[in-house]
Amino acid sequence: MSVLQGIAASSGISIAKAYCLVEPDLTFSRNTVDDVEIEVERFQSAIAITKGELESIQEIAKKELGAEEAAIFDAHILVLTDPELIAPIEDKIKTEQVNAEHALEETTDMFIMMFEQMDNEYMQERAADIRDVRKRILSHLLGVKVVNPSEISEEVVIIAEDLTPSDTAQLNRNFVKGFATDIGGRTSHSAIMARSLEIPAVVGTSDATEIIKDGDIIIIDGLNGKVHINPSDEIIAEYKVEQENFEQQKLEWAKLVNEKTVTADGHYVELAANIGTPEDLEGVTNNGGEGIGLYRTEFLYMGRDQLPTEDEQYEAYKKVLEGMDGKPVVVRTLDIGGDKELPYLNLPTEMNPFLGFRAIRLCLEELDIFRTQLRALLRASSYGNLKIMFPMIATLEEFREAKAILEEEKAKLQDQGTAISEDIEIGIMVEIPSTAVLANQFAKEVDFFSIGTNDLIQYTMAADRMNERVSYLYQPYNPAILRLVKMVIDASHREGKWTGMCGEMAGDEIAIPLLLGLGLDEFSMSATSILKARTQIKGLKKSDMEELVNEAIQMGTAEEVMQAVKTRCNL
Amino acid sequence: MSVLQGIAASSGISIAKAYCLVEPDLTFSRNTVDDVEIEVERFQSAIAITKGELESIQEIAKKELGAEEAAIFDAHILVLTDPELIAPIEDKIKTEQVNAEHALEETTDMFIMMFEQMDNEYMQERAADIRDVRKRILSHLLGVKVVNPSEISEEVVIIAEDLTPSDTAQLNRNFVKGFATDIGGRTSHSAIMARSLEIPAVVGTSDATEIIKDGDIIIIDGLNGKVHINPSDEIIAEYKVEQENFEQQKLEWAKLVNEKTVTADGHYVELAANIGTPEDLEGVTNNGGEGIGLYRTEFLYMGRDQLPTEDEQYEAYKKVLEGMDGKPVVVRTLDIGGDKELPYLNLPTEMNPFLGFRAIRLCLEELDIFRTQLRALLRASSYGNLKIMFPMIATLEEFREAKAILEEEKAKLQDQGTAISEDIEIGIMVEIPSTAVLANQFAKEVDFFSIGTNDLIQYTMAADRMNERVSYLYQPYNPAILRLVKMVIDASHREGKWTGMCGEMAGDEIAIPLLLGLGLDEFSMSATSILKARTQIKGLKKSDMEELVNEAIQMGTAEEVMQAVKTRCNL
Repeated sequence: MSVLQGIAASSGISIAKAYCLVEPDLTFSRNTVDDVEIEVERFQSAIAITKGELESIQEIAKKELGAEEAAIFDAHILVLTDPELIAPIEDKIKTEQVNAEHALEETTDMFIMMFEQMDNEYMQERAADIRDVRKRILSHLLGVKVVNPSEISEEVVIIAEDLTPSDTAQLNRNFVKGFATDIGGRTSHSAIMARSLEIPAVVGTSDATEIIKDGDIIIIDGLNGKVHINPSDEIIAEYKVEQENFEQQKLEWAKLVNEKTVTADGHYVELAANIGTPEDLEGVTNNGGEGIGLYRTEFLYMGRDQLPTEDEQYEAYKKVLEGMDGKPVVVRTLDIGGDKELPYLNLPTEMNPFLGFRAIRLCLEELDIFRTQLRALLRASSYGNLKIMFPMIATLEEFREAKAILEEEKAKLQDQGTAISEDIEIGIMVEIPSTAVLANQFAKEVDFFSIGTNDLIQYTMAADRMNERVSYLYQPYNPAILRLVKMVIDASHREGKWTGMCGEMAGDEIAIPLLLGLGLDEFSMSATSILKARTQIKGLKKSDMEELVNEAIQMGTAEEVMQAVKTRCNL
Repeated sequence: MSVLQGIAASSGISIAKAYCLVEPDLTFSRNTVDDVEIEVERFQSAIAITKGELESIQEIAKKELGAEEAAIFDAHILVLTDPELIAPIEDKIKTEQVNAEHALEETTDMFIMMFEQMDNEYMQERAADIRDVRKRILSHLLGVKVVNPSEISEEVVIIAEDLTPSDTAQLNRNFVKGFATDIGGRTSHSAIMARSLEIPAVVGTSDATEIIKDGDIIIIDGLNGKVHINPSDEIIAEYKVEQENFEQQKLEWAKLVNEKTVTADGHYVELAANIGTPEDLEGVTNNGGEGIGLYRTEFLYMGRDQLPTEDEQYEAYKKVLEGMDGKPVVVRTLDIGGDKELPYLNLPTEMNPFLGFRAIRLCLEELDIFRTQLRALLRASSYGNLKIMFPMIATLEEFREAKAILEEEKAKLQDQGTAISEDIEIGIMVEIPSTAVLANQFAKEVDFFSIGTNDLIQYTMAADRMNERVSYLYQPYNPAILRLVKMVIDASHREGKWTGMCGEMAGDEIAIPLLLGLGLDEFSMSATSILKARTQIKGLKKSDMEELVNEAIQMGTAEEVMQAVKTRCNL
C-alpha cells in the first residue's frame, strides 16, 4: 500500500484494477535445437494463436472504432498467412537447426530491410506490419504477454509511461475508468484526452509503471493528483464517499447547463468548449457549452496513412457546424509539427520541434494541404456560424498571406456557384510572444484573437511544457503572462474586436478571476470544465476582479499572484 | 567557375585554396584473402603510418594548442601499440583468412562495446579513443584521406558542413584564411568564431561541401555572403582591389581606436566586446574595446573530459580582469545546455534543448558546479572591475536564488580572509520574453541588464535560430523585439540602472540607430565590429534616432522598420 503523487490532469475519482501498458521483454538467444520437427510445430502453433488473437482484436476494433480503423488488422493477418514469409522461416529452423525465435528474427529482418529500402510508402508500411506481427508471434513463442489496449474487456485503470494518440484511439471508453502516467503535464496530449473522455487521470507520477503491477487495486484521485496502490478498505471507503460527493457536485453544476454565464455584477462572458472530433459535440451540449472555441482539426489527419480528402474534411466540419446549430464554431487550421507529427508527410527531424516548422509555417509552404482544408471549411460554412483561426502566427505578413489564400479559394468557389457564408470571421491564435506584444497592430487586421496559453506560456518562459526538468517554469500566473494577456485583450477592445482563450488556463479556477478582471470575452475549455467555471464566475464581481488583476500585474512572481487570488476568492 | 550565395557571417575577403573538412567514406566489404601473411603485413604497415601521423599531429598540437590539449594524442598512440588489441586482429586475419579491414572492425567493435558498457567515464572515453584510432587505420588501409584541421600547414579556406567547437579549437589561425559552411546562420557557433578570429566567413551556403573540391581556388566574400569557386583572373583581380579597400577602411577605422564613442549631439555610449577566452583580449585592445560586455565562460568547460577546477577558472578570470586593466568585465556564469553540451555531465537528451534544462536552470540544480565558478570569480574580483551576470533568468525567484548563493560564497570566502572587491555589480541576461515583459520588477533588484538578442529573438518569435526552415522568423527589426528592448531599457533607467546588449544585434548597422534611439547604454559585439560601429555612431544624432525608433515601434513589420532605417541613415 503506497501513494504516488503526480499532476492532477482530469478530475474525478476512479477505483479499479491496474492494466499496465508496458513494452514487453522479447529478448532471447540463438539456440541449437535437437528435434527440428518439434520446433517447427512450436512455430506453427504460435502462428495459429497469433491469428486467432488478431481476429478477435479485429472484431472488437470493428465494433468500437469502425470498419476503417479495423482494416489495419487485415494487413496483419495477411502477413501471418503469407507463404513467402512463413516458408523460409520453417526452412531455416530445419536447415540450421535453430530455435524458432532466431529463425523468425533473421528471416523477418531480411524482409523488413528489403521493404524499408524501397522508395515507396506502401512498401515501407509493409515493413511496419511485419514488425508488429513479429512482435506478436515472438510473444507467444516466449510466453510473454503483449498488451493491447483495444483488447481490454473489463473495468480497469491504465498505467503507462505515456499515452500516445494512437494508444488513446484504441482505448475502449466503456472499460477504461482512469489512468496514471509516468510523464507529462496538465497540457500533454494524454491529459487533454482524459478531460475530453471525462475520465480521472493523474500524469507525471515518475514511476507508476515501475511500482504498479497488473491487477493491483488502484485509486486514481484526479482531484488531488494522487494514485493509491492497493489501498486499505478504509481508504477505499473514504474515496467512495468522495466519489459520491464529486458526482453530487456534478449534478449541482448540471443545473446550470442552459444558463448564461453572468457575473454577480451583470457582466456576460461566453463559455465555449475545445473539441477534437465531431464525436465530442455530445459532451459540449451536455455540459452547457455556448460554442466551440477551438476545434482542433489535427485529428482528421492523424492515425491514418494519407491526407484526408477535401470531402472527408467537409463532412466533418459540416457535422460540427450543424451540430452546434448556429452557435459559434472556431476552427483552427492544421496545427501539425512540434509534438504532433504526421508520418506520411515525411517531415525532417528537427532539433527543437517546438520552435520549428509547424502549423501555419508548414501550411504556407505546403499550399496544397492548406488550400484543401480552406476549401472544405468554406464549403461547410453555410451550415452554421463558422470562424476560421490560423495557429502559430508570429508576424503580420504570415496572417496577411494566409488570409489572402483563403480569399483566393473563396473567390474560386464562388465562381463555381458554391454557397459560402458571408459572415465568416477570420482570427488568429495568439500563442507566440511577438504577436502578443504587437497585438495593437494585429487588432487592426484580424476579426478576433484566441490566446493559446499552452504555447504562449512555454515560449514566454522559454521552457518546454513537456520537459519535467523545467516544468517549474510553466507559470500561467506569472505577472509577465498576465501582462501579455492584457496587451492582447486591450488591443482587441480598442478596435472593437473580441478576445477568447483556448489554452488550459481558461478553465483554471485561479486564472478565471484574473481573466475576468482583464476583460476576456470568451473562455474555451474542456467541455467537462464548463459547468464548474460557470458556477465560479456567477459568484464573482467583475469590478472586484479588475481591482485584483491590476494589483496582480504589478507583482513580481507567480506565487504572489496565486496567493492573492486564493485570498481574495477563498480558494 | 560558379558562385554560391550564403549568409555573410564575418566580414573581409579571402582568396585561397579550398580545404574540404568532410567525413571520409570508409566503407568496405568482408573479403577472403589468399595470402594471410601479406595481409598481416599490410595491416602492420597501416599501423606504422598511423603512428607516424599521430606523432606529427601531436607535435603540431603541442606548439599550437599547448601540452594539455596535445595529451589526447598520447592516448591514441597507446591504443595503437596495445598488444591486447593488435594481436587479436592479426590472429583473426590468419585464422579466418579475412581482409585486415574486416578483422580490424570486428575486433575493435568487441572492445568498444566492452568499454562502453562499463559504468565508468574513463573506460567510456577509451571506447572513443579506439573509434578515433580505428578510423585513422582504416583510412590508411583503404587509401582514403582523413582530414584533420590541426595538420593544415599552408594557407587555405575551410569548406565544411558546419564547424564544431572542437573543430575550431584545432584550427591553426596562421593558415586558415576563411571558411564557408553548408549550414548555420549569423549567430551559429561557427559564425561567432569567425568574427572572433577575424577571418572572413560565409555560412549557410547549403551545398558548398558538395560542389567544392579540395584545392579549388576559392574567394570568400564575407561582406556580401558570396563564395566564388575557381573564379576567372578578372574576378580575382577585382576582389584583390576590394580586399585592399577593405584593409584601407580598416585602417581608417583604426584611427578611432582610442576615441570615445560620442554621437554628433554629444551622447556617450560604451562599446564593449564579447569574448570567449583570455586569448581574445588582444583583439579587444587592438579594436578599441572599452570593456568586456560578455565573457562567455563555457569555453573553459568545453573540449575536455572533466570540469575545470576552481583554480583553473580563477587563473582565467584573473587574466581577463588584469588584462582589461580596470575596465568593466561582464562575466556570464556557465551557460551550458541547448546547443552547447558537455559530454562529461551526461545530461539527458531533450526533445527541445533550446527550451530545456540549461544555463541558470542547470546551475541552480548542479550547485557544486555553480559554487565553484562563483568562488573562482569572487577570488579574481580584486584584480579588476568585475560584473557578474546570470544567463537565462526567467523569473525573479531564479535571480534571487542565484544571488543568495553568490552572497553565501562571498561570506565564506571573506571569513577565510580572501580579498574580494566590494563593488561587484550583479546583473542578468535578458533573453527570455517573460523577463523583458517584467523588466520593471527585475530593475528594482538587479544592478544591470544585458539583453541577449540571439535567444530573445528566437523565443519571442518561437523560431529556432539554427533551423533554416524557420530562419525567416529570426527578425531583429521586428517591432515586437524593439518594444521588448524598449521595456527593458526604460525600466532600468527608471531605477537608475544601465542596460547593455550582447547579442549579435548590438553590432548590426541597421539595429545600431534604433538601439541608440532607445537609449541603450552599452553595446557589446565581436571585437572586430567595434571600430565600424564607432564610426557609424559618431555620425548619428541621438535625438534623430529617438524620433526614428518612436516611429519604428508603431510599425507592423520588420521589413517596414528596415526600410525606414535605411532611408533615414542612408544605408
